[in-house]
Amino acid sequence: MSRIAYVNGCYVPLDEAAVHIEDRGYQFADGVYEVIAIKGGHLVDEEPHLKRLVRSLGELKIRAPMSDAAMKVAMRELIRRNRVRNGSIYMQLTRGVAPRDFAFPANAVSSLVMTVRRIRTLPANAADDGVRAITIPDIRWTRCDIKTVGLTAAVLGKQRAREAGAYEAWQVDRDGYVTEGTSSNAWILTEDGKIVTRPATNAILSGITRRSVLELAKANKLAFEERPFTVAEAKAAREAWITSATSFVLPVTQIDERVLGNGKAGSFTLKLRALYMGYAEGEGATA
Amino acid sequence: MSRIAYVNGCYVPLDEAAVHIEDRGYQFADGVYEVIAIKGGHLVDEEPHLKRLVRSLGELKIRAPMSDAAMKVAMRELIRRNRVRNGSIYMQLTRGVAPRDFAFPANAVSSLVMTVRRIRTLPANAADDGVRAITIPDIRWTRCDIKTVGLTAAVLGKQRAREAGAYEAWQVDRDGYVTEGTSSNAWILTEDGKIVTRPATNAILSGITRRSVLELAKANKLAFEERPFTVAEAKAAREAWITSATSFVLPVTQIDERVLGNGKAGSFTLKLRALYMGYAEGEGATA
Repeated sequence: MSRIAYVNGCYVPLDEAAVHIEDRGYQFADGVYEVIAIKGGHLVDEEPHLKRLVRSLGELKIRAPMSDAAMKVAMRELIRRNRVRNGSIYMQLTRGVAPRDFAFPANAVSSLVMTVRRIRTLPANAADDGVRAITIPDIRWTRCDIKTVGLTAAVLGKQRAREAGAYEAWQVDRDGYVTEGTSSNAWILTEDGKIVTRPATNAILSGITRRSVLELAKANKLAFEERPFTVAEAKAAREAWITSATSFVLPVTQIDERVLGNGKAGSFTLKLRALYMGYAEGEGATA
Repeated sequence: MSRIAYVNGCYVPLDEAAVHIEDRGYQFADGVYEVIAIKGGHLVDEEPHLKRLVRSLGELKIRAPMSDAAMKVAMRELIRRNRVRNGSIYMQLTRGVAPRDFAFPANAVSSLVMTVRRIRTLPANAADDGVRAITIPDIRWTRCDIKTVGLTAAVLGKQRAREAGAYEAWQVDRDGYVTEGTSSNAWILTEDGKIVTRPATNAILSGITRRSVLELAKANKLAFEERPFTVAEAKAAREAWITSATSFVLPVTQIDERVLGNGKAGSFTLKLRALYMGYAEGEGATA
């Protein structure tokens, strides 16, 4: 079955799905996006994702193209047409089409484009063996809290990881602290058993999976601290992992050349992953 | 006559010109662009623009979709079909279409999209009365030397200018120095008659018009210095102006609330503008 995309109210074969060359998403990265996991036919953490989407739109002063309710209907219809039960939905919203000019156009109509894909396979044994992260300078703008499609730096960072045989690149600010991965949040478990992840300021995207994992830690009385950590601290950590909507909780067992522990996923990370997977299939899922 | 766009080898009516929703320019701002002025049917500073384009592509490791020679043929054909003698050509090159994944795709084919437009009219009397610039924090990434389509910050900055009734926003780094406008380079003339503009590091785009104006200054034995200047220094300047491919040399007569001189274009700026216009119509023009 060929995949179906949603483009401004129309359900079209993915091959034919197009936007105008003067769409401001294409010419100015003037748009935002969300990726939501689909598990067992349900959307994981749909509400907080949509809430973050509305916030991103608000920060760029882009009018929402439709109500949340209407968007939910379209999302469900797209998932149904693609017959996907485990995978993810990608939603991109832009300021719309207008003659090229940096300032906001007077009359553009915001655009909504969506695609659905089946679950992406992680590298073999990634959940058991963990993945490798490299560290790179964070060269991004100062508003990483807005989930814009201006992802040039993330693309270059992820490619560096790929070329180094790694799964992710942890970006490091000018003071030596890890901000986040190019498409995930970064976490460590300290020697004394405390979860540490960077607080959600403008320097990182406030990950929805990050937020749910923190809630789970709280509910399960796991000690955690939201504070920046250095690369040195990460390399001395007992365990490490990343979180994202599509990788969930994924063990990191090597940072640059430094192997953590015995090079296998740590027991704490696996426990956290199991907790999150249970959550994603249960209360985090909406019909 | 309806406008014609160029999309990967095809000349199509602008209304129908589209790119796939998985074009990496749309999903990742994974592309670069150039704008070249057309004066009297000729391209102004075509060679340095194409050289910078090749450099931008190289920095993002995007393969050029065709040779410079082939691109020049397509550019001329597009200008001819649009019958434009004074205006500009916009060229956008992206890494092409691929299933969404941050890292570079293995087999994507780079994309080239071009449009041509007639001369854009400046605000009334802009060349005589000058325009106003406001100052805003520079929130962009650290590689502003690459002319990517990741322009979210520039869009927000230009919009702030527009809402303040200004023409441009000068971006200011964390140390209080002006970097550049959102789509132009920033210049001042000091009290003692020296031209000052920021050196072309990673903090600014190395403007082609900037470069030509510096060459003209050199040829005409006008004193200049490439160094950062502060907002305070700009407000105390005798004259100020911006340069870009489409605004050429445009006087700035107000910075924030501070009016420079008598609020009219300074004689030095007008002389420089005349010098540049002469250059653009003469030796800077290629057939």
